[in-house]
Amino acid sequence: MVSDTRALALHIGDVALIDQHVHGCWLTPGDRPRFENALNEGNTEPITHSGFDSQLGFAVRAHCAPALGLPKHADPQAYWDRRSQFNADELARLFLTAAGVSDWLVDTGIGSGGVAGVADMARLSGGDAREVIRLEEVAEQAAQTQGDYAAAFEEILHRRAAGAVATKSILAYRGGFDGDLSDPSPAEVAEAASRWRDRGGTRLQDRVLLRFGLHQALRLGKPLQFHVGFGDRDCDLHRANPLLLLDFLRGAANVPIVLLHCYPYEREAGYLAQALNNVYVDGGLSVNHLGARSPAFLARLLELAPFSKILYSSDGFGPPELHFLGTVLWRKGIHRVLREFVDRDDWSEPDALRVVDLIARENAARIYRV
Amino acid sequence: MVSDTRALALHIGDVALIDQHVHGCWLTPGDRPRFENALNEGNTEPITHSGFDSQLGFAVRAHCAPALGLPKHADPQAYWDRRSQFNADELARLFLTAAGVSDWLVDTGIGSGGVAGVADMARLSGGDAREVIRLEEVAEQAAQTQGDYAAAFEEILHRRAAGAVATKSILAYRGGFDGDLSDPSPAEVAEAASRWRDRGGTRLQDRVLLRFGLHQALRLGKPLQFHVGFGDRDCDLHRANPLLLLDFLRGAANVPIVLLHCYPYEREAGYLAQALNNVYVDGGLSVNHLGARSPAFLARLLELAPFSKILYSSDGFGPPELHFLGTVLWRKGIHRVLREFVDRDDWSEPDALRVVDLIARENAARIYRV
Amino acid sequence: MVSDTRALALHIGDVALIDQHVHGCWLTPGDRPRFENALNEGNTEPITHSGFDSQLGFAVRAHCAPALGLPKHADPQAYWDRRSQFNADELARLFLTAAGVSDWLVDTGIGSGGVAGVADMARLSGGDAREVIRLEEVAEQAAQTQGDYAAAFEEILHRRAAGAVATKSILAYRGGFDGDLSDPSPAEVAEAASRWRDRGGTRLQDRVLLRFGLHQALRLGKPLQFHVGFGDRDCDLHRANPLLLLDFLRGAANVPIVLLHCYPYEREAGYLAQALNNVYVDGGLSVNHLGARSPAFLARLLELAPFSKILYSSDGFGPPELHFLGTVLWRKGIHRVLREFVDRDDWSEPDALRVVDLIARENAARIYRV
Repeated sequence: MVSDTRALALHIGDVALIDQHVHGCWLTPGDRPRFENALNEGNTEPITHSGFDSQLGFAVRAHCAPALGLPKHADPQAYWDRRSQFNADELARLFLTAAGVSDWLVDTGIGSGGVAGVADMARLSGGDAREVIRLEEVAEQAAQTQGDYAAAFEEILHRRAAGAVATKSILAYRGGFDGDLSDPSPAEVAEAASRWRDRGGTRLQDRVLLRFGLHQALRLGKPLQFHVGFGDRDCDLHRANPLLLLDFLRGAANVPIVLLHCYPYEREAGYLAQALNNVYVDGGLSVNHLGARSPAFLARLLELAPFSKILYSSDGFGPPELHFLGTVLWRKGIHRVLREFVDRDDWSEPDALRVVDLIARENAARIYRV
Repeated sequence: MVSDTRALALHIGDVALIDQHVHGCWLTPGDRPRFENALNEGNTEPITHSGFDSQLGFAVRAHCAPALGLPKHADPQAYWDRRSQFNADELARLFLTAAGVSDWLVDTGIGSGGVAGVADMARLSGGDAREVIRLEEVAEQAAQTQGDYAAAFEEILHRRAAGAVATKSILAYRGGFDGDLSDPSPAEVAEAASRWRDRGGTRLQDRVLLRFGLHQALRLGKPLQFHVGFGDRDCDLHRANPLLLLDFLRGAANVPIVLLHCYPYEREAGYLAQALNNVYVDGGLSVNHLGARSPAFLARLLELAPFSKILYSSDGFGPPELHFLGTVLWRKGIHRVLREFVDRDDWSEPDALRVVDLIARENAARIYRV
Repeated sequence: MVSDTRALALHIGDVALIDQHVHGCWLTPGDRPRFENALNEGNTEPITHSGFDSQLGFAVRAHCAPALGLPKHADPQAYWDRRSQFNADELARLFLTAAGVSDWLVDTGIGSGGVAGVADMARLSGGDAREVIRLEEVAEQAAQTQGDYAAAFEEILHRRAAGAVATKSILAYRGGFDGDLSDPSPAEVAEAASRWRDRGGTRLQDRVLLRFGLHQALRLGKPLQFHVGFGDRDCDLHRANPLLLLDFLRGAANVPIVLLHCYPYEREAGYLAQALNNVYVDGGLSVNHLGARSPAFLARLLELAPFSKILYSSDGFGPPELHFLGTVLWRKGIHRVLREFVDRDDWSEPDALRVVDLIARENAARIYRV
């Protein structure tokens, strides 16, 4: 059993991941408050406590410090001083290449200034990178055109989709999941678009146009990702419970729908992945923010969801530490969970190895065709 | 301590269970898709992944394969081939007798064709079996009579109840728990029944008649079981949160109400069992589907619920593997949880032995009088 | 590593706690039903099972019995007999001094008859005690005055606040958190107060006046505590989900808001503590009632909440066992959780020691200025 268990650890350490939902890392230098705020997902104001005083902050000191040549658990000042000796490009190359990720699927909908784009992510990491199109950004682009809104949306979406692998919705941040999510009529869309354009056509909040975007994504047929669960404070967390998507999911039968992040609703998300053939779950963002507690979260993701329906992502954005840390914590956490299953003889080791590959890359490779 | 711990394991392995909520196993042969779909609770459509690629599928291979003479973790094809060498009666006898269950309380409301009835369950297992009456089936029987609906419902219920131990509601599947659950007036019942009969009187969805059925069950006074939490996709999971039953439970003071399954709301259900003298909880169905993760679930069931208010069931239906696996996973899981309590000296071992007996059979024997 | 781990255990055993939300212990003798009912939080009726048959009951026998000179796990009758040899004052002194608490922040809003007040708690424990003012009690006092309700409320609140450290709301028991919680206009307050006085001015349920009280507390500027999550059955648990406070919390930016108890919503509460600079979390009450399961709860409290935002309390009320047991279970639980973090090298030991001090007393000392 000892040598077998070692085989599991080695395999998990070596497997090249597909990071199926990620954002660009910073390309510009910044001050320490920028960095510490980036360790707090929920708070959009300057934080009044240290961003290091959290599971994520402790995990950065435990797992990123050695990558910078520091001892584990280096104190915050030492970490910041050392980090400041590298420029943004060096930090990005260092952490992205160390992540062991073969493919980055990059949501380009935030942080266009000073943040890596799809090509940057490939260049800096030495891996491949593909785009995930944010639907609300397509809507804002369509609002800035002159002609028919629906036609413009469709044209932009199809043009951008030629080089992209998926679409992404942040409906969670624009009123949440409760309420009607059916496909609006062309007349409703035209009227809503006209109203929105009159108000400037920025930051889409209109429910009719949000619904239209979702159904355009279904018609496109590429996998559709949803922000689910916790995020920053713009999000009413109880309205980002994936169970509120149930009617929409029931009606989207042939398009893969990926529920991202999911904390604290990962068990509800797992149920949906079991109940509906086209629903998938992912624990990105949550794994980083839970740090030493992420194994418990990963274990809960392995409850009702079929193993062919679970995906890996980091949801890294900003500090390239996050793109790296996601892989470290996932590898450590999944090893701890699966080794326990194997040690108790509830799972065989070959089954554990196969499930690692499914989550690490095979499920993503299948649905995104990368 | 070593010999003591062994005493706990032996006792848990030996105790005869009362399976207080179960359905009939298959009596007819079927193909592999039928079997694999039976490993997925949530999905009512043909599943597009393997039903074996889940915690339940892995648990079947780990714990049912040896009962068929195969090594643990036999692969799905080997399992299916071996299983196919037995006929339905042989499989049922094999798994039901191996379950160590003395009494089966059988909800007869589903699967009348090709599925074991109450007498079949006794015959195949060598144990005793008693009926649990599904209220929605009584309603459908009453709808098919000619006379007054309420009188017919009451007559059928009392006639069937003479040989039964409990009633069962699937309100979770018929609109959920939110909204008024008070006792409707005779005029409301008559009007609703007339409307429903005009539409054919099948698959009860009418809220007035659902409420009437619940209050008839309270007047009958036998324990009333509720499907709570996850089930198939007909159920809006967030409407099956047992907290939405609070007003109904407060008004049902003298009749035992049993909250079945409960995932992912088992902590909420445990609170209700503490807050209300007549409320009980059970984790059947969940334990099977969580497989290697079921100890974590059983531990959460042991939070707020008083130990005199927790019950065992498998909720097995279809493959007799499920009737057997429920007992294996419960015995393994409760042992792991309680042994840890005892090893840490948080509980004494005699206390652990007593709580095993309460959950395994004594609580059920008391409320169902078996 | 061994000696280091011992240092953590010693430090956790020795640290003097600030119990930042507690009630008075009994000062009068009572019978066994009073004691057993006090072991059940949820049920406000006489319980029909033994209050000892619960995690809390088992924890009392495990951890309080030795403090009375009995062996661990003494049986309920032996425990009751031994306890009956002490008078109320002796029991209070015995358990309060053994608790290792330096400061008690006492919510005086319940149990005025036969229950220790602020000065009693200091006298019996040998520690310091300060008052927490229940807003609904201030309202009831204002209702009994003759003049303008709002002016009377403000005068009473400011007079009482001179010697107090915080305010407390039981909105969870008076309709829950959902719905408008904005500041009502003076005219609305006057009208609502008039109506309420006409009905006798007791047991405040009026939403306008409840909202007024909350905003008076914000204007006062001392920390405001909210009962959150489970309590007795008057509380509709799903309406005590702290996410329903989101709009109120967003608008209360400069006043510390402390979410008390939180079960089963501790993960949601932790999110709020991350998302909002002024929000804090506490697991009092829950830790006692979860007994042997409290380490799992304390671990979940250490997920999203920044470590500078987590507080200790017992929420003890009635039997002084509860004031003592809170500290025992917290020390045992936090040790188990943090030792695992340190043993796995996810946290350094100095970090663990520092987080212990933050939760045990430093965070409370900072926001309450004790």
